[in-house]
Amino acid sequence: MSELTHFNEYGRARMVDISAKPSTERIATAQACVRLKSGTLAKIQQGKIAKGDVLAVAQVAGIMGAKRTPDLIPMCHPILLAGVDIGFQENPLPDSRGLCSISITATAKTTGPTGVEMEAMTAVSIAALTIYDMCKAVDKGMSVTDVSLLNKSGGKSGTYTREESVG
Amino acid sequence: MSELTHFNEYGRARMVDISAKPSTERIATAQACVRLKSGTLAKIQQGKIAKGDVLAVAQVAGIMGAKRTPDLIPMCHPILLAGVDIGFQENPLPDSRGLCSISITATAKTTGPTGVEMEAMTAVSIAALTIYDMCKAVDKGMSVTDVSLLNKSGGKSGTYTREESVG
Amino acid sequence: MSELTHFNEYGRARMVDISAKPSTERIATAQACVRLKSGTLAKIQQGKIAKGDVLAVAQVAGIMGAKRTPDLIPMCHPILLAGVDIGFQENPLPDSRGLCSISITATAKTTGPTGVEMEAMTAVSIAALTIYDMCKAVDKGMSVTDVSLLNKSGGKSGTYTREESVG
Amino acid sequence: MSELTHFNEYGRARMVDISAKPSTERIATAQACVRLKSGTLAKIQQGKIAKGDVLAVAQVAGIMGAKRTPDLIPMCHPILLAGVDIGFQENPLPDSRGLCSISITATAKTTGPTGVEMEAMTAVSIAALTIYDMCKAVDKGMSVTDVSLLNKSGGKSGTYTREESVG
Amino acid sequence: MSELTHFNEYGRARMVDISAKPSTERIATAQACVRLKSGTLAKIQQGKIAKGDVLAVAQVAGIMGAKRTPDLIPMCHPILLAGVDIGFQENPLPDSRGLCSISITATAKTTGPTGVEMEAMTAVSIAALTIYDMCKAVDKGMSVTDVSLLNKSGGKSGTYTREESVG
Amino acid sequence: MSELTHFNEYGRARMVDISAKPSTERIATAQACVRLKSGTLAKIQQGKIAKGDVLAVAQVAGIMGAKRTPDLIPMCHPILLAGVDIGFQENPLPDSRGLCSISITATAKTTGPTGVEMEAMTAVSIAALTIYDMCKAVDKGMSVTDVSLLNKSGGKSGTYTREESVG
Repeated sequence: MSELTHFNEYGRARMVDISAKPSTERIATAQACVRLKSGTLAKIQQGKIAKGDVLAVAQVAGIMGAKRTPDLIPMCHPILLAGVDIGFQENPLPDSRGLCSISITATAKTTGPTGVEMEAMTAVSIAALTIYDMCKAVDKGMSVTDVSLLNKSGGKSGTYTREESVG
Repeated sequence: MSELTHFNEYGRARMVDISAKPSTERIATAQACVRLKSGTLAKIQQGKIAKGDVLAVAQVAGIMGAKRTPDLIPMCHPILLAGVDIGFQENPLPDSRGLCSISITATAKTTGPTGVEMEAMTAVSIAALTIYDMCKAVDKGMSVTDVSLLNKSGGKSGTYTREESVG
Repeated sequence: MSELTHFNEYGRARMVDISAKPSTERIATAQACVRLKSGTLAKIQQGKIAKGDVLAVAQVAGIMGAKRTPDLIPMCHPILLAGVDIGFQENPLPDSRGLCSISITATAKTTGPTGVEMEAMTAVSIAALTIYDMCKAVDKGMSVTDVSLLNKSGGKSGTYTREESVG
Repeated sequence: MSELTHFNEYGRARMVDISAKPSTERIATAQACVRLKSGTLAKIQQGKIAKGDVLAVAQVAGIMGAKRTPDLIPMCHPILLAGVDIGFQENPLPDSRGLCSISITATAKTTGPTGVEMEAMTAVSIAALTIYDMCKAVDKGMSVTDVSLLNKSGGKSGTYTREESVG
Repeated sequence: MSELTHFNEYGRARMVDISAKPSTERIATAQACVRLKSGTLAKIQQGKIAKGDVLAVAQVAGIMGAKRTPDLIPMCHPILLAGVDIGFQENPLPDSRGLCSISITATAKTTGPTGVEMEAMTAVSIAALTIYDMCKAVDKGMSVTDVSLLNKSGGKSGTYTREESVG
Repeated sequence: MSELTHFNEYGRARMVDISAKPSTERIATAQACVRLKSGTLAKIQQGKIAKGDVLAVAQVAGIMGAKRTPDLIPMCHPILLAGVDIGFQENPLPDSRGLCSISITATAKTTGPTGVEMEAMTAVSIAALTIYDMCKAVDKGMSVTDVSLLNKSGGKSGTYTREESVG
């Protein structure tokens, strides 16, 4: 297990020098889960039919958020995002506590010397926050859970796949 | 339970008109939890001692992220943030799956016609993502959970306190 | 007719001092028109049915663009936007040159010492550019015309209503 | 005529994956036209002489706006803009409705897998909005018309030249 | 002399809570000085005559930079800037080391609970950096000195005037 | 000595076309100096010990500021920053006027057709402004001096090293 690399010899944070790293194709997929009341999910689903589409807004927000990653995460490098795609899956079956959920996945791609994990993580986070924002008038108890990296490929550390089920 | 308000008569998203709402003092506190390996937490804690302080970077990122909320969340109004404070609590005792955690709380304040829930939620999210970014070289399996509103006060809907323990 | 006010005594641009202006409720509505081939409009309308909704993306872009107005227009003051709403009207009847159009209107509101004309103008412009972006693969000849202020109220100069039909 | 490409298999908007596209040199030129009263144009021209130069501010705004394109247009990819140049041509001869005009052209260049049409279109739009902003105290009836792509080269779709005269 | 206030009880940085502070009219003026070769200053002055006006670009950059202050300075509050004005004074008489200079002053105003010192300081800094950028091809040895607050008024700490000459 | 290149044939500012320039590895180091009272420096140093670390915040701000350079400096090209590192050196020995100082150096790297001088200059400027902001409650007389390029390498103009001591 290597050391934290985001610090210089004085122990202060730095943006790691990646100028010697080769350019490779990189893909990363992250997920998040919004837990919400069944009535809130029903409203979102009704809205989709009626064009008042919370998820369409969340999708745009997630894609735009991915592009803002280096503005938001201090040590992230600016990259040339080659593509971002976001998907939503609604899970209307209530869990033991009576909550439904919306699963969000985002896949980001680039060709370059550094990865797109943070872009994918930021995309799902901003998409989830947007759902919260648009539904908070009816359900302040919503929460965002399981923001995590599902898999990534490319780069020196190679392929990663999340082992365990999150949660 | 009221309807989703972020849509106009054509069912399309809008930024809700708040010009008739009175200006009141508003406070909101949100939380997030970063779950990570005990070795990762140990590295963060060692770094704090040695000034390579992941949490100091996350704190700055969270505060700056709170200010970017209306740039990130499409239907959020620009507001005059009057203050943001972020705290971290490290929980080194491993859970049943062997994971430790860092709890993040953020409190945002403003005086105005609309609330600061999203600023607090964004602050903890960006702080959590920053921790992920700075430690992902050693622990890609970290996840962010329980991003939720703990309480808020001010405004027409009054005071809200999260009822149940998250998780 | 008053002089251009955005210049100081040396003839250089300045952000006009509005600190002595009273705070009033202000509303502005702007329009833009995207001219496009009938086949392009048909694709947009089919997409709406199938959820591939160009106009939903343009609406989010326009609202977010309105919030970026002071970042984009050099002498614009930052303001507390109280609301933004955008509407689209599709005009499928071809004109004499065989082109259809989509009319965009945006209404912005604030309470403060300066107006929201530029926020409304920016909202329709960014929404129109987004339509162009999403359809340019099939119709590079699209154009944006008639970006103009329809009406505004509030402030020292009072109410303005566009006299003539644009075009 | 190909289909709209900005949507995924669920009909939701995505940032198109360009990672397989080759890097080529790309140039795009766009135009916009600001229609204004002859007295307004005269003030702008007098200002130029006296250094109160509306067009100099518009030029800076247009160049900076071109750089913000991926922040503004949701599905635009971040690119490495290699150059932006903006020109203005004043047309003092009134048209049949007594209006003069200022023509704006912007040329953007990059070397990469995706084009710069939107950067050129955004540059002329923001430059035009800046002229509106700086002159709106004396002429609220100004309008921006004919925002369109004049030509582009590079990339799979090759060279495009606008056929007809705009208007 | 009070303590540093930008830290919470855990010694971590916070955005200070200003919600209890009264709203007053606030003005701040800052200065910066760009030291450069006489030949460089001559080129800038020739450019002004020929419309290739470095200082016009620097002025727009400084005003736009002032608006970005809360995005740049982590603990700065967002404020409603009511006005910004920037002036340049060219000092063609070489000093003992043969260098000329351009003095920059910026005055920022707002009405609110916190001051505009940082907006004025940021305005002169960004204006100075812009001059550096536009002339660095001919004079990499330029430097920016004496970035400082000349005076400010309003707020609890009242009026401040810089006592000594900077240098 | 070449001419100013940031202007087009009409004498108006442009973003210089760099599409014909080869991609090379580029490094630039800039410095700034914050002059402050000995008591202010003592508070900063005490804070470091107690974790209320002004310099840690300034470091994050400087790195994030470097990434914002093309948003701030009008004619700067967007680049892919490959790394940024910032160092601080405290000079507690008072000068003839009784002032201590903190020296800031920032090194930026990229591989591309244009240099990183402005990124390094912006990094030290924003870091210095952040120190000012966080200490201004106790020392409004602080100033930032000697913002200058120490050295740069790569590109057509080759290596540059600042000849004289600044000040």
